Amino acid sequence: MKKYILIISLFVMLISCQKQIDKSPLALQTDFGRKDNAVSSMYGVALTVDKDLKVYDLTHEIPAFNIWEAALRLDQTARYWPEGTVFVNVVDPGVGTERKSVVMKTTNNYYFVTPDNGSLTFVAESLGIEEVREIDEAVNRLTNSQESYTFHGRDVYVYTGARLASKQITFEQVGKSLGTNITKIDYQKPRYEEGKFFANIPILDVQYGNVWSSLPRQLMLNNGVQVGDILNVSIYNKNTLVWNGDVKLVNTFGDVAEGDNMAYFNSELNFSVAVNMGNFSDKYKVESGPDWSMEIIKK
Amino acid sequence: MKKYILIISLFVMLISCQKQIDKSPLALQTDFGRKDNAVSSMYGVALTVDKDLKVYDLTHEIPAFNIWEAALRLDQTARYWPEGTVFVNVVDPGVGTERKSVVMKTTNNYYFVTPDNGSLTFVAESLGIEEVREIDEAVNRLTNSQESYTFHGRDVYVYTGARLASKQITFEQVGKSLGTNITKIDYQKPRYEEGKFFANIPILDVQYGNVWSSLPRQLMLNNGVQVGDILNVSIYNKNTLVWNGDVKLVNTFGDVAEGDNMAYFNSELNFSVAVNMGNFSDKYKVESGPDWSMEIIKK
Amino acid sequence: MKKYILIISLFVMLISCQKQIDKSPLALQTDFGRKDNAVSSMYGVALTVDKDLKVYDLTHEIPAFNIWEAALRLDQTARYWPEGTVFVNVVDPGVGTERKSVVMKTTNNYYFVTPDNGSLTFVAESLGIEEVREIDEAVNRLTNSQESYTFHGRDVYVYTGARLASKQITFEQVGKSLGTNITKIDYQKPRYEEGKFFANIPILDVQYGNVWSSLPRQLMLNNGVQVGDILNVSIYNKNTLVWNGDVKLVNTFGDVAEGDNMAYFNSELNFSVAVNMGNFSDKYKVESGPDWSMEIIKK
Repeated sequence: MKKYILIISLFVMLISCQKQIDKSPLALQTDFGRKDNAVSSMYGVALTVDKDLKVYDLTHEIPAFNIWEAALRLDQTARYWPEGTVFVNVVDPGVGTERKSVVMKTTNNYYFVTPDNGSLTFVAESLGIEEVREIDEAVNRLTNSQESYTFHGRDVYVYTGARLASKQITFEQVGKSLGTNITKIDYQKPRYEEGKFFANIPILDVQYGNVWSSLPRQLMLNNGVQVGDILNVSIYNKNTLVWNGDVKLVNTFGDVAEGDNMAYFNSELNFSVAVNMGNFSDKYKVESGPDWSMEIIKK
Repeated sequence: MKKYILIISLFVMLISCQKQIDKSPLALQTDFGRKDNAVSSMYGVALTVDKDLKVYDLTHEIPAFNIWEAALRLDQTARYWPEGTVFVNVVDPGVGTERKSVVMKTTNNYYFVTPDNGSLTFVAESLGIEEVREIDEAVNRLTNSQESYTFHGRDVYVYTGARLASKQITFEQVGKSLGTNITKIDYQKPRYEEGKFFANIPILDVQYGNVWSSLPRQLMLNNGVQVGDILNVSIYNKNTLVWNGDVKLVNTFGDVAEGDNMAYFNSELNFSVAVNMGNFSDKYKVESGPDWSMEIIKK
Repeated sequence: MKKYILIISLFVMLISCQKQIDKSPLALQTDFGRKDNAVSSMYGVALTVDKDLKVYDLTHEIPAFNIWEAALRLDQTARYWPEGTVFVNVVDPGVGTERKSVVMKTTNNYYFVTPDNGSLTFVAESLGIEEVREIDEAVNRLTNSQESYTFHGRDVYVYTGARLASKQITFEQVGKSLGTNITKIDYQKPRYEEGKFFANIPILDVQYGNVWSSLPRQLMLNNGVQVGDILNVSIYNKNTLVWNGDVKLVNTFGDVAEGDNMAYFNSELNFSVAVNMGNFSDKYKVESGPDWSMEIIKK
């Protein structure tokens, strides 16, 4: 008799142990910075939901209100994370207004908890939408937070994300299905026409000043460009030419002399220009965003 | 016979497993920044005490030596964390001098490990002191660190916090009891007098430039203010009027047009002013701290 | 019969539990900053290798391409971490060129995964090299990353570090042995000659502006200096005298009045100068690096 009690109690302990292992990582992205307590309050809420949850940072330095950059960063990062990861994104200029709060499940089994304000544009395209659900705040909201209208990151998003990641709620319990409908940002796709490549400059490699375009390596290879080629690159701010020059397409920085301009495929495998051991964007006053574009011709 | 050995060894393994689950989170706040190795040395010490401890950051960007802000941030953050959390606070301009090193236990079962320099002022008030103990550095100090006089964050505070969080010492083993005595910062409390609300500006919402006061929502509601009211707000630096204007009290940013001034209750449920999608503090040169105050009249 | 199945299944579950406990911490240092997704992509790769790995940050704010500072920070931090810790260092201006990718095992059983570009100079000296192995990228490289030439931090270093820390590969499986050969930075060691101490200024205590030298406390004590002495300190940029003054050697900041110059042994137990509650490096335009040195005479 005692033996069975022993074995049952062993199992109970083991199951609580095992449950740790089944939890999903929870990864947070915001435009809050780390100067104040906003991010750490979100951590506290997540750990109060489940003390053993594993919480991580994507970045908290998205420029304030910059949905475009939030959308890009999610897309650049997510694919490197394990299946099942729950991403919480809080770049939310519309907090407390009519914009929807949603969880998107992708076909590769990631979850994105976010205001539906365009932040999902790129991950939806690259990973594929399985289903979107609107967060039912009647049940998925931090207890006693109803009087707070300006910090849904803490009161709704991380709370819901933590409950999903720790399996306290299922995806279905998030709220009603929206099918595959999400708000998307309009943007120009990269293309090849009559010997010329056209691309955006969605973002800079800010730490080093390298200028990243949206033009995929494969599109260039398919149209006859190869490493070693000399390319003529023009960079525009709206219709104003900001920089024009010839650059050699190389594999990596050390393939040209220090201080030389160069072109390469970045860590996203997109066409980029740089100065080896220098800062292209500072040197030539090039920035990024919807107004910035690039044209490339093989010489 | 062999069966019993088996079962006993199972229990030993399980207990080591189970112990993981009973540990408390350890959360660090400092004015060190993350540019150098100070914070990561503290992490290393905590993990050397117990490799399986879970260590987190509140913020490391408290302005250097700013005990006032350290005290505020602890108070804004702590309540969102799980019961039992051990907070380590190292904003310590008096390191190596006569200021005491203490651990405060609150009535809701949090622990704060900190120099007793005023950092506990607000959490002591809002959470209630259960007991304060002075750290006995004869036993609660990193081995072989006696010759180091300038980094108690690493040598004393995180070491003691990690031992508490991992249950290697009890609260009683921290050192002798100081009852409920702590050093407090003097400050003006918010009040309502003859139709006027008076409050401090303890801190800004730095990332967005919103100006937060110390005036609680409830005090305003109790005195006839409600959402939708127009309020006349005056902001003073000592006795100099820095800004005066009428603002509408709304629930959230999107309730006014972009660029409009507005008033709202922030995520701490205190009265605040802002520019929707703008930066109030930059625009009107408003800062925070003991010299800054606000007066509000309902029109 | 059923009893045995039960006990075996218990053991299997327990072993998976136990394995968590045997894993090593993985600690990352880079010059990437946290503004973009580079660090979080590295985290994602580590967690995809092993979802239960514990990943930490040393710092990601090493100035871009600054191998000297990377080397110093590793040395200042590593010793506080638990035995077995796997450090990943990515300050890699030569990414994609002929510089080797290595793992160094120290005599105290730490692992450093890094480009062999001088970053190991100081840890190799202070901790002792057990063996160095060159990373065999044919097997130790993120699947499908062969077309990426510029982000070995993600594709090679953190991937290899995570596999080591989670015991998926042994140290021998990293690649072929290089014995104890590593690339070292040349630098001047501190010395005492004819009544004068000579030292470098390898780094500042950036957050507070304290100026740290490379001169160990023990060398000064051995040559008759003691706390309470007045010392004449000269600071040079190459051969130009930048600052000269008399300072009292004290234990800690609070031992002199606010605003006074002072000397002390820092948290590394090296000779340093500071202004109590002020910023010495700003006030006297003192910086750090190979061009900066100090001479100290006991008066």
